Amino acid sequence: MKINKNYQNIEETYLFSEVAERVRRFMEKDKSATLIKMGIGDVTRPLCRAAVDALVKASEEMGTAEGFHGYGPEQGYEFLRDEIASYYQRHSGVKLYSEEIFVSDGAKSDIGNILDIFDVDNIVAVTDPVYPVYVDTNVMSGRKIIKLSATADNDFLPMPYPGLEADIIYLCSPNNPTGAAYDKTRLKKWVDFANAHGSVILFDAAYEAFITDPDIPRSIYCIEGARSCAIEFCSLSKTAGFTGTRCGYTVVPEGLVREGVQLRKMWLRRQSTKFNGVSYPVQRAAAACLKESGQEEILQNIAYYKENATIMAQTFAELKWPFAGGKNSPYLWVKCPHGMRSWAFFDDLLERANVICTPGSGFGDCGEGYVRFTSFNTHDNTVEAMRRIKEIFA
Amino acid sequence: MKINKNYQNIEETYLFSEVAERVRRFMEKDKSATLIKMGIGDVTRPLCRAAVDALVKASEEMGTAEGFHGYGPEQGYEFLRDEIASYYQRHSGVKLYSEEIFVSDGAKSDIGNILDIFDVDNIVAVTDPVYPVYVDTNVMSGRKIIKLSATADNDFLPMPYPGLEADIIYLCSPNNPTGAAYDKTRLKKWVDFANAHGSVILFDAAYEAFITDPDIPRSIYCIEGARSCAIEFCSLSKTAGFTGTRCGYTVVPEGLVREGVQLRKMWLRRQSTKFNGVSYPVQRAAAACLKESGQEEILQNIAYYKENATIMAQTFAELKWPFAGGKNSPYLWVKCPHGMRSWAFFDDLLERANVICTPGSGFGDCGEGYVRFTSFNTHDNTVEAMRRIKEIFA
Repeated sequence: MKINKNYQNIEETYLFSEVAERVRRFMEKDKSATLIKMGIGDVTRPLCRAAVDALVKASEEMGTAEGFHGYGPEQGYEFLRDEIASYYQRHSGVKLYSEEIFVSDGAKSDIGNILDIFDVDNIVAVTDPVYPVYVDTNVMSGRKIIKLSATADNDFLPMPYPGLEADIIYLCSPNNPTGAAYDKTRLKKWVDFANAHGSVILFDAAYEAFITDPDIPRSIYCIEGARSCAIEFCSLSKTAGFTGTRCGYTVVPEGLVREGVQLRKMWLRRQSTKFNGVSYPVQRAAAACLKESGQEEILQNIAYYKENATIMAQTFAELKWPFAGGKNSPYLWVKCPHGMRSWAFFDDLLERANVICTPGSGFGDCGEGYVRFTSFNTHDNTVEAMRRIKEIFA
Repeated sequence: MKINKNYQNIEETYLFSEVAERVRRFMEKDKSATLIKMGIGDVTRPLCRAAVDALVKASEEMGTAEGFHGYGPEQGYEFLRDEIASYYQRHSGVKLYSEEIFVSDGAKSDIGNILDIFDVDNIVAVTDPVYPVYVDTNVMSGRKIIKLSATADNDFLPMPYPGLEADIIYLCSPNNPTGAAYDKTRLKKWVDFANAHGSVILFDAAYEAFITDPDIPRSIYCIEGARSCAIEFCSLSKTAGFTGTRCGYTVVPEGLVREGVQLRKMWLRRQSTKFNGVSYPVQRAAAACLKESGQEEILQNIAYYKENATIMAQTFAELKWPFAGGKNSPYLWVKCPHGMRSWAFFDDLLERANVICTPGSGFGDCGEGYVRFTSFNTHDNTVEAMRRIKEIFA
């Protein structure tokens, strides 16, 4: 019996446990402090009424002989895939076929599992800083990884360069952690690169609902040529507060063929073999959120978080702290003042403002000297955190 | 870009599509026939009230600021893992630690995904006939597979034999498709073999709730030594009708160590990296079913299916058709009369009795000459199907 030894090469990231530990130690010293968490990566607004009503109705159905649903289609119910297709049509004029859409329990699962259909012998390109899942999943399977630096010099948006060799390219836009988002011109360059080199772009669109700038595409399929080189992952998590309800979807276009094989068919085979579909009530709730009626409620929550982001962006601008994101994204990627390192600024913010952020160095070497703020706290807490920061650092 | 070429070695099983096609053709000829499906692999009884109430309550919670749940623990909520531990304690006196229990969206996902933690270079043993997922998932990753014949000679319960080389051993008991179940003495031999050879048993206990015979273990951990060689997969699908609600769990004991590494830690790493937990309302519903109060309702459904199985077993016994299962299992594995081949008997049953079964040859070479009946139809349909079969074949 041999275990998968690649697991021994995964770097343990102690980022969030170290954050928790430092907060714990601080609270021991100063028990009266009122901490405000601006590092939260999870949503906080409750599910919208349309989602709750759909969950309740479908749950009641499941208790009746006529309304009971057993195994559903592995790819997801047609009623939900149709809503997803309409959603794309509405927000971006993108036409998807039902067979191209795969409903799942979340983008994280799909982003990890998609690697099943690719050979180990492929070069993987990720950005630095990066959402650690892209790296760890490839280390687990033993792929070679190269890193593309995301720095202020390239607006935190790495671009293809002459001589770049990459078979699998991860792009997350709007980005976690930087909040930077590719505009159409820049994204087109990646699509052209992938088509020219036979690469596949794994496009993480988890934060697309925060985009309001018309020049920032909400789907990679807004870009000509993307249907022959890109797989898109998206989720209801940030769009509709589904982090605990669990529903995502992955698009594998018909036209995406490598070595003569349709990747859509491979993914269908993977999902029919290793997955059994998403909970029926959850699929009903997801469909309710994507319907035009549900969209109204959803957009109110997005607007709430976006207002927080705007308040934060204004504060950092006033303080003349350079930052990315906060416009089409729930994240703000802030340069630490006075050339401080990430953890030093984290400690300083914690001790003087009692505000918790996330040290950028935890997301990669290029994250050193930055911290990540998120807009998922309440309006009042966001206002208060910014008031404290201004008072101390102005 | 290289795709995973192992996918090209997966045999397409046309079993269920061929069944559907033959039924369609038959219905074209004989539009008035009242078909009874005895091949159904899905449950048909609605969710119990305790499950529905828990789903509804948790869904309403999700719509409130105080009750909202975002990302949950990847391994599952403590409240559900505690109920699973109590369930094992009650039904088998087996003590599990909370850290050993991993909640998931279903056993199929876990059975497929567990292979992530093993090297490709392992020999895999499966039974023949077999649940196709065990085979396909290993073909996808390029492992060598050997088949252990399950025939009437060994009561459809293959046993280890001298010279057997197997690193990963799949055992499904009560078995899909044969309905045969290992007693403690036989299962102990597998546990001893695995411990002696350093193999890992992947034990699929999906049908454990149908066991009533005290000599048939409901968990492999009833067997001494299993905690150092076995991973157990189970699910609420058949236990509580969760095929469309989606919740399962996997047990990886602390004491299961290979090449110096705790497999529990590897699986935790796999799940934290490629999975984001199960829907909160679904976990609440699963917990409600496993509580002693919910168990009453659940057992009524199991008893309903088991009565169907008994009616079928009596019929086949009267007809002197040899069969396995039907006692501690929802499945009956029936030898085709007069030495008929699986598909020939399938056609005969369809045409003369208008009853649909599943041809055994679809589950492997050793399934030739057998068909599978399931007890998941209604009581009335089961009685009627057996009446027709007796009338025609007596």
